[in-house]
Amino acid sequence: MTSRAQTYKGMKDYLPREMRLRQYIMKTLTEVAERYGFEPMQTPIVEYESTLAGKLGDDEKLIYRLQYGDDRLALRYDQTVSLARVVGQYPNDITFPFRRYAFGPSYRGERQQRGRFREFYQFDLDIVGVDSRVADAEVVAVISESLARLGFTNYRILLNHREVLSGLARVAGVPEEQASQVYRAIDKFDKIGVEGVHSELSKGGIGEDAAAPIVEFITLEGEVQAVLGAMRERLGADERALQAVLDLGAVVQLLQDLGVPEEAYAVAPRLARGLSYYTGVVFEAVIEQPPIGSLLGGGRYDRLIGSFAGREVPTVGTAFGIERLQIVMTELGLAPEESTAPRAFVTIFGAELQGDALRLAAELRAAGIPTVAALQPDKLGKQLKEADAKGVRYALVVGPDELTRGEVVVKDLRSGEQRSVARAAVAEALK
Amino acid sequence: MTSRAQTYKGMKDYLPREMRLRQYIMKTLTEVAERYGFEPMQTPIVEYESTLAGKLGDDEKLIYRLQYGDDRLALRYDQTVSLARVVGQYPNDITFPFRRYAFGPSYRGERQQRGRFREFYQFDLDIVGVDSRVADAEVVAVISESLARLGFTNYRILLNHREVLSGLARVAGVPEEQASQVYRAIDKFDKIGVEGVHSELSKGGIGEDAAAPIVEFITLEGEVQAVLGAMRERLGADERALQAVLDLGAVVQLLQDLGVPEEAYAVAPRLARGLSYYTGVVFEAVIEQPPIGSLLGGGRYDRLIGSFAGREVPTVGTAFGIERLQIVMTELGLAPEESTAPRAFVTIFGAELQGDALRLAAELRAAGIPTVAALQPDKLGKQLKEADAKGVRYALVVGPDELTRGEVVVKDLRSGEQRSVARAAVAEALK
Repeated sequence: MTSRAQTYKGMKDYLPREMRLRQYIMKTLTEVAERYGFEPMQTPIVEYESTLAGKLGDDEKLIYRLQYGDDRLALRYDQTVSLARVVGQYPNDITFPFRRYAFGPSYRGERQQRGRFREFYQFDLDIVGVDSRVADAEVVAVISESLARLGFTNYRILLNHREVLSGLARVAGVPEEQASQVYRAIDKFDKIGVEGVHSELSKGGIGEDAAAPIVEFITLEGEVQAVLGAMRERLGADERALQAVLDLGAVVQLLQDLGVPEEAYAVAPRLARGLSYYTGVVFEAVIEQPPIGSLLGGGRYDRLIGSFAGREVPTVGTAFGIERLQIVMTELGLAPEESTAPRAFVTIFGAELQGDALRLAAELRAAGIPTVAALQPDKLGKQLKEADAKGVRYALVVGPDELTRGEVVVKDLRSGEQRSVARAAVAEALK
Repeated sequence: MTSRAQTYKGMKDYLPREMRLRQYIMKTLTEVAERYGFEPMQTPIVEYESTLAGKLGDDEKLIYRLQYGDDRLALRYDQTVSLARVVGQYPNDITFPFRRYAFGPSYRGERQQRGRFREFYQFDLDIVGVDSRVADAEVVAVISESLARLGFTNYRILLNHREVLSGLARVAGVPEEQASQVYRAIDKFDKIGVEGVHSELSKGGIGEDAAAPIVEFITLEGEVQAVLGAMRERLGADERALQAVLDLGAVVQLLQDLGVPEEAYAVAPRLARGLSYYTGVVFEAVIEQPPIGSLLGGGRYDRLIGSFAGREVPTVGTAFGIERLQIVMTELGLAPEESTAPRAFVTIFGAELQGDALRLAAELRAAGIPTVAALQPDKLGKQLKEADAKGVRYALVVGPDELTRGEVVVKDLRSGEQRSVARAAVAEALK
């Protein structure tokens, strides 16, 4: 019986070539996170449906639900709700501040479109349990160092604060019930530009007196201290907003202390990022080429993580989307050439020389060289073709003459050159 | 609103301490597999329900099913069916022999019992597309090297062949329709012993004339060549069984060529391992202490992987169960002491010295030392306690005096000793 072979739509298989890039991304992110003292954690992909209930608003319809026996379950929608559950579930096993990273898939029944998947992998990192500007800056520093280590050179991390935008609405005289229209309009800035925001505000019934200073404010840009100064000036009448600008200034100072290069970040008064979720500093990493906009974002969200613990648990965090990084890095040619493809392919010259070939393979592996061995004494040409198809660099041949002389023929499959090497020196020659 | 924090029963959260051991296992298995030229692959955790249909027999009731819109879906039960789907789905993207490894969770609605989980992680490896004894031996070699690298010293890999047991039934004169009773009885050997097998055979209506040679055969053990010789002698009348013994002999020779230590394997005529699935060589790694029996198993199964490709695709493979390894290694004390817990904790002496502390942390990270920084200028005792709770080895203090002298106080949290070190020499001192 032949079954139909088909991946579920919106989900993807990763064959070795793509998988190696994903592993490289994952390894780089892990190394940087561990360098900063973040610790690994993992939660099940299946949660009780009730764990997710009431946390996602309109997005609840995107949840994959399942039932097993009497248990009503769901595939996790992100790793953040599970983190909140863990914080509530193990009050005695976690010491705060808790820096944790977590890597794994989440599930959303999204409409299918390029670069958006129904199974997507995220590398989350959060600092849980402390309301601290050092924590805010540390997360930004990890993002910056991670992107740099992945090979990005033209990224920039935009910084803003949730209270800057609400203060802006207050200072501009927008009534509180209309404030969310201001945020929504500003959130579209990247797509519709300054004129677009202006007309969105008008359509939302926000008069020109209020709209003009808002539009002027969100186009502030330039040198960090100058932008901060301009923000202070315009928001000076609003105490909470002023404190938010001071907080941003503190984060900027801490980024310097942490050695984050100046060109890696900017203060961007227009950055909104779904304000209902965040409570403090927000950030977003962008690149100009290719013009895909945001690479990832994050910020301080002090209310969600305590929802199971029954108290406020201040948290700042971010999540790297692996598929997005993979796509952008491929487009930019940032995938490392030095892949983990095996380095050597040991051919089998003939049935009677099979043992010698396998012993050579074992020696190379013991010397730390990833080595594929042929599985049968096929024609040499066929074996070399197999080696090439696997992306292996060197093919090795032990024929009867080589065996007698204690040598091995090493063929560089990239250049086509070949030479005889003393058997004891082969491992060294391949390194 | 406070939600109830509860993991779905049968599934587990992994906090940092356990997670580090899992990462170590995973890293070790990956390194060995890559050393042998296995390549990484990943498939979605969600499959169309039809992909799993008809592949699991009685176990179909353990499948987690879900529906989204009109799509009838299932969580994968193992990674093998997904491998078969991939082989059928990408005929032009895979070159055979295809050595692939895959790491990830699968799902089964098992009754809850110790060490058995409804979400479990496996590290699968298979050599797909070639019926070759070298492939069989390579998988056994990878298992042996992996267990050795994980620190196991008392493991042994038992080898047998599917046709040995069917030949045994034929040679003993058991009618074909009763042969499966023979396999089932032998499969229980580890639990019920030789007497138990004997009485199972009798109960199954197998006469003493047949039962006696069967019981004698499955208790054969000892030096590999002697056991092979005894098997040849007893099965000499059955051509297929004789070929199976020759195949086992070839695998044993190849294990030698591949450098697998002699004490790491044995031929075990009693090894059955669910014979309906396997078609050739089968193997199982066992340890004597703790008495948990089988660590993992595998073998050649030439029929399943071709079920989507519409042709036979010979395959040999195995799967490491991560939870089982984790539990056994913890019991045996094999978890490496050298964990990835951060090495240094930089305290903040006072608000005005925060920048200096963070700059020191940045220097240490740049030197490759995983370093946690305090997030606020708390009392020093409280900061040291936090460092200790995180399992950090060294706490660093930069007070005003140290700052003037260009020094850092390094406190070893294990021994309690502390000394002043020149700032430029701190990274070196912590290594």
